Amino acid sequence: MPEKPFHLAVRAIIRDERDRCLLLRRSSACKHFVGTWEWPGGKAERGEEVDEAVRREVREETALEIELKGVAGSYGIEMARLRIAVLCMEARCTGGTLLLSEEHDESAWVPIAELPKWDLTPGLREFALGHVVGRIEPEKQGGP
Amino acid sequence: MPEKPFHLAVRAIIRDERDRCLLLRRSSACKHFVGTWEWPGGKAERGEEVDEAVRREVREETALEIELKGVAGSYGIEMARLRIAVLCMEARCTGGTLLLSEEHDESAWVPIAELPKWDLTPGLREFALGHVVGRIEPEKQGGP
Repeated sequence: MPEKPFHLAVRAIIRDERDRCLLLRRSSACKHFVGTWEWPGGKAERGEEVDEAVRREVREETALEIELKGVAGSYGIEMARLRIAVLCMEARCTGGTLLLSEEHDESAWVPIAELPKWDLTPGLREFALGHVVGRIEPEKQGGP
Repeated sequence: MPEKPFHLAVRAIIRDERDRCLLLRRSSACKHFVGTWEWPGGKAERGEEVDEAVRREVREETALEIELKGVAGSYGIEMARLRIAVLCMEARCTGGTLLLSEEHDESAWVPIAELPKWDLTPGLREFALGHVVGRIEPEKQGGP
């Protein structure tokens, strides 16, 4: 049996100056995970470079323009006929006014430290908890 | 000034049944980092999917055939005119006999726990220490 293909998807962790990131809620127009929250992003099209894919997805889903700051990390998703490597990029908004596509019905700027309280899309949830929250310096998490 | 592009590179962490991974030493034919060790891989070509890029790079550099097991993680590299997102994939050898290209002059099967002792290529070094070694179960690391 041939191996399932492994394709690339991208997500943008768009942070503002208060260290909040932009989450979008998947609408009933989505086939999967309706009502869960995610960073903007999606599958890279064949022939797109990483930066082109992230910028296009963010533009389509938010109407925002971004600059890319670096690589945040990645995780894998197993689908019925396909596997996806999701590359998460750190980004900052450089222009535009937030306007959602039909794929999402709500948006929120969420402090990184509060991500565990949100109903995040599977895969992204595990990534966010392990990689993003784990990197927050102790003084930003509150506590004694 | 326009942003530097962000392109994709891929690396294969090819593990054998004894949890050793294949490292290659960069030869004097390389422009950078001669003598340092790395997992097989390189830049994805425009239009390649993740699996196609990994398989091609591994075939070119080792003559081995692999199957992809999952996403290990990723890191970024800053170059003069370009930034690279390096996606590291877990893999297993399924065929072929190891034959190096001119890009490498030595190979070694290295236990994951011993990676810190090797002179790894910058970027890959930080990734390997943080992500791969950090995931080893305590009983495999030896102990007190």
